[in-house]
Amino acid sequence: MSKTIRRAWLPFLNVDVPRDCDTPEKVAAFELKAGCAALKLPVPALKLDPALGEGYAISGGAITGGDTGVLYGAYAWLMAAAAGERAPESLQKPYWPLRMINCWDNADGSIERGYAGRSLWFEGGDFCYDEGRLRQLGRMLASVGLNVLCVNNVNVKAEAELLIEDYLPKLAKLADLFRPFGVRLMTSIDFSRPLAHGVGTADPLDPGVQRWWRERADAIWRAVPDFAGFLVKADSEHRPGPFTYGRTHAEGANMLARAVAPHGGVLVWRAFVYNCMQDWRDAATDRPKAAFDTYAPLDGQFDDNVILQVKYGPYDFQVREPISPTLYAMKRTRLAMELQLAQEYTGQQIDLFAMNPMWREFTEDLPPEALCAVAAVSNLGRDDNFTGHPFAAANLYGFGRYAWDPFASPEAVLRGWARLSYHLPAAQESTLTDMLMNSRAVYEKYTASLGLCWMVRPETHYGPSPSGYEFDVWGTYHRASRDAVGIDRTASGNGYVLQYPEDMRARYDTPEACPDNLKLFFHRLRYDYVMADGRTLIQRLYDDHFEGCAGAEAMGEALKTLDLPEPDKSEAAERMERQIKNAREWRDVVNTFFHRLSGADDARGRKIYE
Amino acid sequence: MSKTIRRAWLPFLNVDVPRDCDTPEKVAAFELKAGCAALKLPVPALKLDPALGEGYAISGGAITGGDTGVLYGAYAWLMAAAAGERAPESLQKPYWPLRMINCWDNADGSIERGYAGRSLWFEGGDFCYDEGRLRQLGRMLASVGLNVLCVNNVNVKAEAELLIEDYLPKLAKLADLFRPFGVRLMTSIDFSRPLAHGVGTADPLDPGVQRWWRERADAIWRAVPDFAGFLVKADSEHRPGPFTYGRTHAEGANMLARAVAPHGGVLVWRAFVYNCMQDWRDAATDRPKAAFDTYAPLDGQFDDNVILQVKYGPYDFQVREPISPTLYAMKRTRLAMELQLAQEYTGQQIDLFAMNPMWREFTEDLPPEALCAVAAVSNLGRDDNFTGHPFAAANLYGFGRYAWDPFASPEAVLRGWARLSYHLPAAQESTLTDMLMNSRAVYEKYTASLGLCWMVRPETHYGPSPSGYEFDVWGTYHRASRDAVGIDRTASGNGYVLQYPEDMRARYDTPEACPDNLKLFFHRLRYDYVMADGRTLIQRLYDDHFEGCAGAEAMGEALKTLDLPEPDKSEAAERMERQIKNAREWRDVVNTFFHRLSGADDARGRKIYE
Repeated sequence: MSKTIRRAWLPFLNVDVPRDCDTPEKVAAFELKAGCAALKLPVPALKLDPALGEGYAISGGAITGGDTGVLYGAYAWLMAAAAGERAPESLQKPYWPLRMINCWDNADGSIERGYAGRSLWFEGGDFCYDEGRLRQLGRMLASVGLNVLCVNNVNVKAEAELLIEDYLPKLAKLADLFRPFGVRLMTSIDFSRPLAHGVGTADPLDPGVQRWWRERADAIWRAVPDFAGFLVKADSEHRPGPFTYGRTHAEGANMLARAVAPHGGVLVWRAFVYNCMQDWRDAATDRPKAAFDTYAPLDGQFDDNVILQVKYGPYDFQVREPISPTLYAMKRTRLAMELQLAQEYTGQQIDLFAMNPMWREFTEDLPPEALCAVAAVSNLGRDDNFTGHPFAAANLYGFGRYAWDPFASPEAVLRGWARLSYHLPAAQESTLTDMLMNSRAVYEKYTASLGLCWMVRPETHYGPSPSGYEFDVWGTYHRASRDAVGIDRTASGNGYVLQYPEDMRARYDTPEACPDNLKLFFHRLRYDYVMADGRTLIQRLYDDHFEGCAGAEAMGEALKTLDLPEPDKSEAAERMERQIKNAREWRDVVNTFFHRLSGADDARGRKIYE
Repeated sequence: MSKTIRRAWLPFLNVDVPRDCDTPEKVAAFELKAGCAALKLPVPALKLDPALGEGYAISGGAITGGDTGVLYGAYAWLMAAAAGERAPESLQKPYWPLRMINCWDNADGSIERGYAGRSLWFEGGDFCYDEGRLRQLGRMLASVGLNVLCVNNVNVKAEAELLIEDYLPKLAKLADLFRPFGVRLMTSIDFSRPLAHGVGTADPLDPGVQRWWRERADAIWRAVPDFAGFLVKADSEHRPGPFTYGRTHAEGANMLARAVAPHGGVLVWRAFVYNCMQDWRDAATDRPKAAFDTYAPLDGQFDDNVILQVKYGPYDFQVREPISPTLYAMKRTRLAMELQLAQEYTGQQIDLFAMNPMWREFTEDLPPEALCAVAAVSNLGRDDNFTGHPFAAANLYGFGRYAWDPFASPEAVLRGWARLSYHLPAAQESTLTDMLMNSRAVYEKYTASLGLCWMVRPETHYGPSPSGYEFDVWGTYHRASRDAVGIDRTASGNGYVLQYPEDMRARYDTPEACPDNLKLFFHRLRYDYVMADGRTLIQRLYDDHFEGCAGAEAMGEALKTLDLPEPDKSEAAERMERQIKNAREWRDVVNTFFHRLSGADDARGRKIYE
């Protein structure tokens, strides 16, 4: 049991849900009663209307909802009440039916790219958890309407392959725990697993392989009748996959999809294939082109219960990328967009980086109806506050809100989180909301502005290393020289831009039309290139890094003005110190890096080290 | 027991020394008998003359030697016979009385910077070894006259601190095993250890601390009467030391020296102190100056049984450094030079790098009488051939030969190793000898020529990363810009050169006088600087990297012509493939790095990638 009970944005729910609340309706009733007691409000009526499914309506002092809708309605009512607002009266339904958290938890208890402590449910190669904490997590997920939890890392490491084998009874027990919160489980699987069971091949067209997976699926759904499905990372970063057998990813995915289809399961297939052993000398290969090249030709070949899960950008969760062109190329394929709450490249839950403003931008370029689902890599762990930085909870909260309404105002979402979490005086609430709203812009400026990706330290992905990836195998290069920087991805360059629909091509294909924040993603530009505002590229790089660092320092001052409760106040302050140190390092390293290359002095005479 | 018995340069000693040979004289007699049987020669007479100590004389078919001298004489006679040569008839004595191997073995069985497998005597936090293999090692060490083995890493990690405490009986057993080979044991100690025993401080001036170490020394020498002494890494890379208590390193070393003095022990103190948390922005601090600044003021303050062990260069085992100025500054201090057989920065026992030519150069600049001892970090491990690359054994062999005669011809030493190891036809023996003789020049050219250090990958120290250290904390920068590269360490620069005696200052202080191979160590030069041979600096950098890589490829061809026995032939070939791949990577990465910076084209139009 954790020493300090931390309740994230639900401090008013100060009594834990008891284990005998074994349906969403019972949880809803319990929460309403307990929450209203804490808030000193009368308890509203709760009505079940199975036809509403996940939807709910609040009117006349009553909450009506479907099987899980009643639970979502109860939380919506309570959170509105706690915030001193009125819950909306119209029928509320989630935008996407599948709203998934992908946990990169390993069975040994570590979490790949985890920044909030060890796994909440694994340790020593097996399940190991505090039921109370998991019910707290179930409440958090349900309160923002998230409904699928993939419990293990997409890189299936020992003994996570046992989740769907020897550990099935334990998986069923975990599913029982989360079921009352409307959360269904999913697991990442190892495509080559039949080999470990004497099948002799993992070829998706082999009848023995197909039978093995069908029998496996039958066993899983017998143990967990509402199991959600499988998540697969295949032929990616040394993972096994259908390429070994000369099969396409459609053939690989469909084989698994057919095993889970009879049970209503989905097969989520990650579209994250690229050459992770690229020769840096090879300028013809360009990693951002890889997913489109692999998947676009397969459009129309995937079964209906396959969901192709595509990262938002063509690289890998960078601070700024254009939307992945694969998301426009698969009109006849069910698509999920993959987000990442874990701040792998975005500050590692030390630096502030609230994501809703970024996600909201995606809906400008990609109508959300192009997607059937949304997934996010978890930022959760065993830390008392679940997310390392207490403010990182805003991304989990915000993800649920986004998954219900991708058009929601990020400002309203983040203000809502701030209000529920801290009930600060109005001016302080605005200060905190502004900090969150600006956090990405600040981080982007002091790290890699203008669409310049991958300037982090290899392996740790934290802190500056402007050349760290230049001669490595990851296909992630800016090729900065004494004259110019960036990759020419235009039609006359390597042609990446041609993967986009025509209107987007036009927007990206010339340096003049291309938005500043993606200039160096699409173009190779000389340092003396003059931007629309009259500044040179090099001056803009310097200015951004000075401004970004100043922005971090200003956030540090703003943070001091907030009357946060402990331990959040100390935790946020301690992380802010590290963020400011990080921002200064970025400012100086990147400015020096480009100064050594370009020889250009800062027009404003600020300090750039030799 | 290892599957294949590998006997390095002693293939004719094909019977293991039995455990009942418990004195050097008995080992000598056994080896002579067994060796002569294998070589089909009459057994020479063996005479003990204790007055000769480690010395021996061979004349009239008899070997006369002191307690260990008889053993050294026996091996010298056998090796000469096996090589078809005559052993020298004059009295032979080692140049330095202490000829030490420093093992960086951890109690958990790992070896820091080890490239030949796991520890030969540690596993799982305790001693664990194959006695037969250790006697093979004892024979190897004795055959080249090495006489001290420090068994644990200078970074004393758990449970190595127990070597001089709970594990003392086991240490004594190991000492018994090596004693017949004339090898005495030493251990690295943790300066702060009294704290773990309730002393409350580790202040060297505290009487309780002094008493603790005295009592410890008494216990050690009771268990191991010929124990050699302690090796200490203090106040270095986060190790504890006297600075914690405001004491000098003389005060710290002398305290320990006085504990071991009554037993005839030595206290070896590593002069490896620098700021390993340097801010890269701080151009005033320069790591190569650190050891001199710390130790030169202490000259004359160390007790007689303290040996200050100084790395050969002021940095850390780079492919080319000027001799450490600290070695000239300590006329009233007993000094040891520290070499490194483990090829940490010199190819990691994948790439060939025979060291005798480099060591021989040291004697040109530093008369060996300035030293009282020599130490080398071990390149040994549990691999069947003891050294990973079978040719890396040449460095262990060569170190013994160097320690006996620092003026010996490197060519003769390496040819001797080749002949003993392989008995190749004359032309092939010359090919192999030439490969070894040229190996450093080749490696230097394709990695970091002209005194340009630290262009390896941080952490692994293998493979190119020209900017890997530029913004890091290690004090290791070349600060390459679009115009120039290198650090100005002249009198008008940061003054490092002033740490040298006057004649060396003159040699290094101007770019014209400075030898090419140290040009960029002492000077910051523009790429268009014209070298003595008329080439520009940038052209010389390109040429070196092309030539170095071609040199590695040529070695690969040469290797194919050698009729080596298996498994040496396969092992060497497999490593040579990796070396050539490494050399190509270095060539292309470094050339591209400097081409991007300088914009200069190769005068000969060879391929430099963008």
